[in-house]
Amino acid sequence: MSVTEDRIFIKKAIRLAAYGAGHVSPNPLVGAIIVKNGRIIGSGYHRKYGGPHAEVNALKSATEPVAGATLYCNLEPCSHTNKQTPPCVPSIIRAGVRRVVVANIDPNPGVNGKGIAALRNAGVQVENGVEEENGRELNRFFFKFVTEKQPYVTIKYAQTIDGFIARSRDRQDWISGNLAQKRVHQLRARYDAVLIGGQTLRADNPQLTVRRTRGRDPLRIILSSSLALDPSHAIFHHHEPGNTWIITTETAGREAMNRLAGLGCRIIPLKTDNTNRVAIGDLLHVLADQKIISLLVEGGQEVISAFLHAGMVDELKIIQAPRLWGSGFRAFPDTFEPSAGMFTLHQTERMESDILLTYRPV
Amino acid sequence: MSVTEDRIFIKKAIRLAAYGAGHVSPNPLVGAIIVKNGRIIGSGYHRKYGGPHAEVNALKSATEPVAGATLYCNLEPCSHTNKQTPPCVPSIIRAGVRRVVVANIDPNPGVNGKGIAALRNAGVQVENGVEEENGRELNRFFFKFVTEKQPYVTIKYAQTIDGFIARSRDRQDWISGNLAQKRVHQLRARYDAVLIGGQTLRADNPQLTVRRTRGRDPLRIILSSSLALDPSHAIFHHHEPGNTWIITTETAGREAMNRLAGLGCRIIPLKTDNTNRVAIGDLLHVLADQKIISLLVEGGQEVISAFLHAGMVDELKIIQAPRLWGSGFRAFPDTFEPSAGMFTLHQTERMESDILLTYRPV
Repeated sequence: MSVTEDRIFIKKAIRLAAYGAGHVSPNPLVGAIIVKNGRIIGSGYHRKYGGPHAEVNALKSATEPVAGATLYCNLEPCSHTNKQTPPCVPSIIRAGVRRVVVANIDPNPGVNGKGIAALRNAGVQVENGVEEENGRELNRFFFKFVTEKQPYVTIKYAQTIDGFIARSRDRQDWISGNLAQKRVHQLRARYDAVLIGGQTLRADNPQLTVRRTRGRDPLRIILSSSLALDPSHAIFHHHEPGNTWIITTETAGREAMNRLAGLGCRIIPLKTDNTNRVAIGDLLHVLADQKIISLLVEGGQEVISAFLHAGMVDELKIIQAPRLWGSGFRAFPDTFEPSAGMFTLHQTERMESDILLTYRPV
Repeated sequence: MSVTEDRIFIKKAIRLAAYGAGHVSPNPLVGAIIVKNGRIIGSGYHRKYGGPHAEVNALKSATEPVAGATLYCNLEPCSHTNKQTPPCVPSIIRAGVRRVVVANIDPNPGVNGKGIAALRNAGVQVENGVEEENGRELNRFFFKFVTEKQPYVTIKYAQTIDGFIARSRDRQDWISGNLAQKRVHQLRARYDAVLIGGQTLRADNPQLTVRRTRGRDPLRIILSSSLALDPSHAIFHHHEPGNTWIITTETAGREAMNRLAGLGCRIIPLKTDNTNRVAIGDLLHVLADQKIISLLVEGGQEVISAFLHAGMVDELKIIQAPRLWGSGFRAFPDTFEPSAGMFTLHQTERMESDILLTYRPV
């Protein structure tokens, strides 16, 4: 099999894996393709958390005997047994697969090369690192979580060309067009959780659900030191119990906590830092403990700045609408520290006259 | 000849025409391709103002007899005689061209369909409107100038993600990267004139010349009501005499006018509007009288707003650099009128981590 063919089939496995997005967390996205004599004879992907792995789905789907075939899989097959499903390596060996090609080693300490070693010990030829960057990009939430014990954090907001996110602090204004709004719902469906600050809740009264595309609602998190939240807000009335969390400070009023808990919210009081705010690091630590591997921060000004100042942002997604306002409310306060605002442009995506710009920290 | 083939060859003519950019103003950009039996047997474009037209260059270049061939030309061939070069239509007829395909009718009142009529009268088959939009886009400076008697106006500036063009009003800060800066020089080489305000001259001390790419320097125009311009500025020392114009008010000091004229600048005093400023409409009228068909406005805040408020902007080119500053000096003042800031996104172009966004007014 040539290097080019290996790359083509691994790319196919990666594309297949992506179908699991929004359904497999905290597991990685995995796709598998079985190739024999240059033809694909089986394929599968990890469809949902707790369900069978991609490799097993691919083996099951095979239309002819797998013996002697090559298995393409973006992530190293698992060999560990301390989990819901049986390990994949024995099944691969049993099926008589002759060669396995993977993009990435599974950084999970329980695997981390042991799967590849077990395959090689059984006489299976293994190729590692094919389309490595693409595989890492696909599973960036998972890699961040496993290696740093923190969720992957993406900040998202819509702005005018001149950087305004609303006419004033207390107003909600539709800035972007239809396609861009739909795109935001698609994003939500892929992240484990969505987070906003209390001020954004008061100004926008959002539901933070997935409505304009198919997909599951993310966990909704409100960050509010004061707990001055009006129980009539939409978010408290359009949710399944337990699907809205409120992160607050230990010093917040007991009464407010009880009232919000009574609405079905989970209240998580955290220690405050020296500015009497929740420290972003502590917040992310709590989310990681709850196996939240990806977080979409949707505003507002104070929350976005806090994440950037803490150096805990992996991606900045800005939807820029084709308008100049001259004045209004900006995404960042005057006190924002420019040294926290150095990026590279990772990707651009046009949506009618809006553009989605994806930046990553330098 | 099929419709598809007609479009392919007209597109080639358009690409060829574009080589004349920066050299033929106030003439249009024109390219011509001669096709016989499906093969290109000649091609040419209008290379410089005063030089032979594209059609003539194409006929001269033909590698075999043109009789019976099709001539593709993005603009209607000229039939008028009140100009430097002889009209093209007689040459085309004489050469025995059987068919002529054009993208656009020449809106110039001296032509405006007369070229096509003359060809048809001589028995030449003519097809008009093939790739019409592309042809109009290519010659947007020329079409604006001929139909509205005003130059095509493009505003260009570089900003941070959050809309700042400098750290403060009096500072110049490099915002964009190498490729973007080179791109600005390419733009300058294509516009007849570049304009800045006195404040930008004082803060940036620019040369406004073409240095980082090949091309001729544009005419440089400074808009200054006060004429409070320091003679030591670079712009007064790196120019050919007459290549720097200063547009000012009739009420500006006579002494300052004489001093700047002594530096080789051309001083153009205009009447003031009710805010004691030069009216943008008057300014553009003067430029059009001088056969300036395209103007690149490079700042700053006051000048850019004045053009947008006057509704006299055809294009907004923003180079957005991957930085957040939180505070600084913005491209627009608080007094900017949002109704003057509605656009569609026309084009995007990535340059490393910068992005050039081209907007056009709605």
